[in-house]
Amino acid sequence: MAGEAGKARTVLLATEKAFAADAVAKIQAAFDESKYTMKKLENYKSKDELLAAVADVDAMIIRSDIVDAAVLEKAAKLKIVVRAGAGYDNIDLKACEAKSITAMNTPGQNANAVAELVFGMMLTSARNNYDGTSGFELVGRSIAFYGYGAVARAVGKLAAGFGMVLYAYDPYIPKDAIKKMGAEPVDTVADLFKHQYVSLHVPLTPETKESINKELLLKMPKGGTLINTARMEVVHEGQMLEVLKERPDFCYLCDVGFKAQEEAKAIVGDKYMKRVIFTKKKMGAQTIEANNNAGIAAANQIVGFFEKGETKFSLKA
Amino acid sequence: MAGEAGKARTVLLATEKAFAADAVAKIQAAFDESKYTMKKLENYKSKDELLAAVADVDAMIIRSDIVDAAVLEKAAKLKIVVRAGAGYDNIDLKACEAKSITAMNTPGQNANAVAELVFGMMLTSARNNYDGTSGFELVGRSIAFYGYGAVARAVGKLAAGFGMVLYAYDPYIPKDAIKKMGAEPVDTVADLFKHQYVSLHVPLTPETKESINKELLLKMPKGGTLINTARMEVVHEGQMLEVLKERPDFCYLCDVGFKAQEEAKAIVGDKYMKRVIFTKKKMGAQTIEANNNAGIAAANQIVGFFEKGETKFSLKA
Repeated sequence: MAGEAGKARTVLLATEKAFAADAVAKIQAAFDESKYTMKKLENYKSKDELLAAVADVDAMIIRSDIVDAAVLEKAAKLKIVVRAGAGYDNIDLKACEAKSITAMNTPGQNANAVAELVFGMMLTSARNNYDGTSGFELVGRSIAFYGYGAVARAVGKLAAGFGMVLYAYDPYIPKDAIKKMGAEPVDTVADLFKHQYVSLHVPLTPETKESINKELLLKMPKGGTLINTARMEVVHEGQMLEVLKERPDFCYLCDVGFKAQEEAKAIVGDKYMKRVIFTKKKMGAQTIEANNNAGIAAANQIVGFFEKGETKFSLKA
Repeated sequence: MAGEAGKARTVLLATEKAFAADAVAKIQAAFDESKYTMKKLENYKSKDELLAAVADVDAMIIRSDIVDAAVLEKAAKLKIVVRAGAGYDNIDLKACEAKSITAMNTPGQNANAVAELVFGMMLTSARNNYDGTSGFELVGRSIAFYGYGAVARAVGKLAAGFGMVLYAYDPYIPKDAIKKMGAEPVDTVADLFKHQYVSLHVPLTPETKESINKELLLKMPKGGTLINTARMEVVHEGQMLEVLKERPDFCYLCDVGFKAQEEAKAIVGDKYMKRVIFTKKKMGAQTIEANNNAGIAAANQIVGFFEKGETKFSLKA
């Protein structure tokens, strides 16, 4: 049971795509400290291997590995499964709930990975994709965050290093807390769009869906640039295309997909990678460090769950 | 004469390619404060216009404008010409000397412009030119500077913001001064190459010419990356090609030209912009801010020259 400290535990590290050796060593170290046994099933080829491996384990760390009812059926002793990473649609949460198995993810471990990607895109755009022409510097320019959670604050930390001026709007964080975390709070979403860069860090909700529209984007000053590492659907695609057409100075730096990519590229022509950047797929979190951090966080969350009954990152079915 | 304070002076801003309006306003403000008259000759089309404009001026600010013996001949009252920028091969220094005219440039105004370009290249390489594959983060990695002047320190400032660890070798700066400026001093050039990133900030001299060779580069750890925003000739091109062939993990990020560019691109194949980046031409200093800063610095240097006899950035024929 969770919170029963000091018991012998066996944890399965089930990774169809293995962690880097360095990360595995750190995960092992976390379990060694609590005298847990770590079993490894890395780079396995068939589901049967996974089904066999789960039989006697108390806990599991997975990556994109599928944990469905069939796996849970075989995992007679399993108390907790932790997805090392943010996304968790590979876990059947309802099946976990039915068997009283706790499921967790490890949010926040990719914040710096996303933040560095944001600056890669900003600099590539500001310096015209290194085409030899004169660009501009980030120093002294303003960046405004819609949502000021872990990722936004990681972007903010780098922005401060570049000598940028930070603004933020987050209805769930008190203004003085925003201020303490380095950004000037603004009163409304619209106020964010007075600044050259607006970086989106909101979840997709009925309220945020397609909320970044032409009216807001046209408020942006010269060189206005929207950065989206949040969710594709937050931006109104049709109106984004109109803004790209009407405002030749406007830029969109996007790591979350855009359905009308070809149309957007046609509008900006040879200014692709300057006015518009689309990464090949959502890759903000895809770094060695983010993956390793997630693995280590998963190990620590399992130890915290068993030793102290911690359930902070439990997922709801 | 230099150092004769409080006299009326006329300064010509002669820019075949004009400064941004914002920069002109700031240059004007610097002269207004000293009650100097500023004449503008912007976007002129023929040398005759320049020859006519210089007749009655005490000082000149230029950009890439040619100041040769013919110009100096007409500039009967000229005491000082300042190139707003670093390069000054557009000024005939011998002709200036013959007429006792002081010539200056404005070094150091482009340090942040170069530093931001360095990070653009590093991030683009680390994130695989945004191709959707998993990359790595800069946080916690080490960068070593060969030469720790203004540009290196500007790169270092950003590196610190990214949570990198800094090392430097500079025979002209005492070790404790390097330490105070945020980097760990190392004993030899070779010691720099123990670190993942080495950034070159040395002038071209007989000693530095082709000094970055295979022996040094092969010392670099996995993912070893050379960054060159200094001078093309400091790197031994033939041996660089050999290293690119022999070390598939090695990267070269270059803003100063490379003669065998096509050969290097052929070696790295689809890893161009990841293993090797060549900007289209030396563009590190090419930003609105660097150009504006240079114009304002030029104005301040002219005032300092006349009012206080300052000659810090005088050029030798």
